[in-house]
Amino acid sequence: MTSADLTPQTPAPAAGPEALDAILRDNFAPWIQRLGLRVEEAGERRTVLRLPWSDELAREGGGLSGQAMMAAADTATALAVCAARGGFVPMTTVQQSTTFQRPVSGRDVLVDVRITKLGRTLAFAEITLTAEGATEPAAQATTVYALLG
Amino acid sequence: MTSADLTPQTPAPAAGPEALDAILRDNFAPWIQRLGLRVEEAGERRTVLRLPWSDELAREGGGLSGQAMMAAADTATALAVCAARGGFVPMTTVQQSTTFQRPVSGRDVLVDVRITKLGRTLAFAEITLTAEGATEPAAQATTVYALLG
Amino acid sequence: MTSADLTPQTPAPAAGPEALDAILRDNFAPWIQRLGLRVEEAGERRTVLRLPWSDELAREGGGLSGQAMMAAADTATALAVCAARGGFVPMTTVQQSTTFQRPVSGRDVLVDVRITKLGRTLAFAEITLTAEGATEPAAQATTVYALLG
Amino acid sequence: MTSADLTPQTPAPAAGPEALDAILRDNFAPWIQRLGLRVEEAGERRTVLRLPWSDELAREGGGLSGQAMMAAADTATALAVCAARGGFVPMTTVQQSTTFQRPVSGRDVLVDVRITKLGRTLAFAEITLTAEGATEPAAQATTVYALLG
Repeated sequence: MTSADLTPQTPAPAAGPEALDAILRDNFAPWIQRLGLRVEEAGERRTVLRLPWSDELAREGGGLSGQAMMAAADTATALAVCAARGGFVPMTTVQQSTTFQRPVSGRDVLVDVRITKLGRTLAFAEITLTAEGATEPAAQATTVYALLG
Repeated sequence: MTSADLTPQTPAPAAGPEALDAILRDNFAPWIQRLGLRVEEAGERRTVLRLPWSDELAREGGGLSGQAMMAAADTATALAVCAARGGFVPMTTVQQSTTFQRPVSGRDVLVDVRITKLGRTLAFAEITLTAEGATEPAAQATTVYALLG
Repeated sequence: MTSADLTPQTPAPAAGPEALDAILRDNFAPWIQRLGLRVEEAGERRTVLRLPWSDELAREGGGLSGQAMMAAADTATALAVCAARGGFVPMTTVQQSTTFQRPVSGRDVLVDVRITKLGRTLAFAEITLTAEGATEPAAQATTVYALLG
Repeated sequence: MTSADLTPQTPAPAAGPEALDAILRDNFAPWIQRLGLRVEEAGERRTVLRLPWSDELAREGGGLSGQAMMAAADTATALAVCAARGGFVPMTTVQQSTTFQRPVSGRDVLVDVRITKLGRTLAFAEITLTAEGATEPAAQATTVYALLG
């Protein structure tokens, strides 16, 4: 691993929420579009997405499916790396670890990504998913991405 | 953690593929139904699902999205626990770790779950996802589930 | 998983640093004692340990071994759960995921644990390991513990 | 990530157990030497180490500490990559995820590593730790390594 710090390799203004929404629309699978994710904040170090509540994402019994939370965390990391680098970057997920801590029902989830290292070839992030209005996390994840360009 | 071994708590014939397909249909989110997962094999220790190729699951560029593979691994674990216990069990994912090793394009993926511990309150599994016809894994995952009944 | 919040089951004053140092001394393996961990802060939600620099923990080349950081994160979680519950609790690690982000050489490491959920049977934590004086993490971990008493 | 398969980049005979024992002795921290790990098998795809039982590694109560199992899994992966590449390779751990499934007491543990991908810059492995004579795993891990040479 390089000792590169969090300075973007190509100094660039971080891509804003609209630019990230466009990257999401253009690069992710149709099945991922169905999550209805929206970018709320975008910055060099921190990006926040909203996962709107939808019965389509709920299991029998009414709880938000863990699969939707994992998918949201992964998608949010990719967009956060784009925000940090100032535009679209080809990349691939290397590893994701997720813990599921509290059920969510009937509420949007905020997906808060912090890029903890942006190296030349690898990026690391931590993601906290919290139901809107709650103070404790529904789930937490760490991700590692390989940057291809 | 208990020292319970892999003997089902309630001795029961493992649920077969048709029973698991019904559990999948009745208990998982509509968004998960869109993956089109089908149960190929079901046993006390090992369950195999097929994730059919679909452009809906592919990113720009044509590769199967990692999110779909994570969701398939989680869903397959839940069904494998039902197979091991001989029917539906209420449960919740505690932790999932996934590594992404090789791209998949244009091919179905086989999702092979091995239950490595079936305790009274926790179940552990390892999952290997392999593109049909390939010999090396596309992704691997480990999962921990809390059993609620 | 229960919906229990972070209120200790048995309301109790969080065990302080000296009490945790004693728990560390009395309950962990001799090989773990060699890490020389010391409790710096102890609270209901957050506990901080210091891993003092030692050549014994360094690989050829002079970098702190990742194994020592994983062991410190696990040990720190156990002590943080004791702090949150107000005394020693029998428990066992269920899962630990660690990412390694920056090398450490010649400096102590601060191991900062935040308990994100303290349920009746499961506890979840996130751990950030940072070289003293650094602003970015050397490593991050998430842990899941089963509480046995 | 590259699409490189498991063929070593520099075709080379896999390093044997004695060569790996020497790499272990020369490159790992003194604290890791105290684990007493020994290489039992070494091959291009699979390497097995023995973690001898020692009271030094046991917690109060007599169980093998999870920290020792995590450290053994990490060390075994590094040696397995060396075996696959035919000699010492500078590398660094990127990520390790470990699940703890069964206690171990009074017995050696076999640490069985399978390299599932050996790319140009990243290697992936799965590790199963089993108490000698047992049929079910004590712990399982997945690891990602960055190869630096």
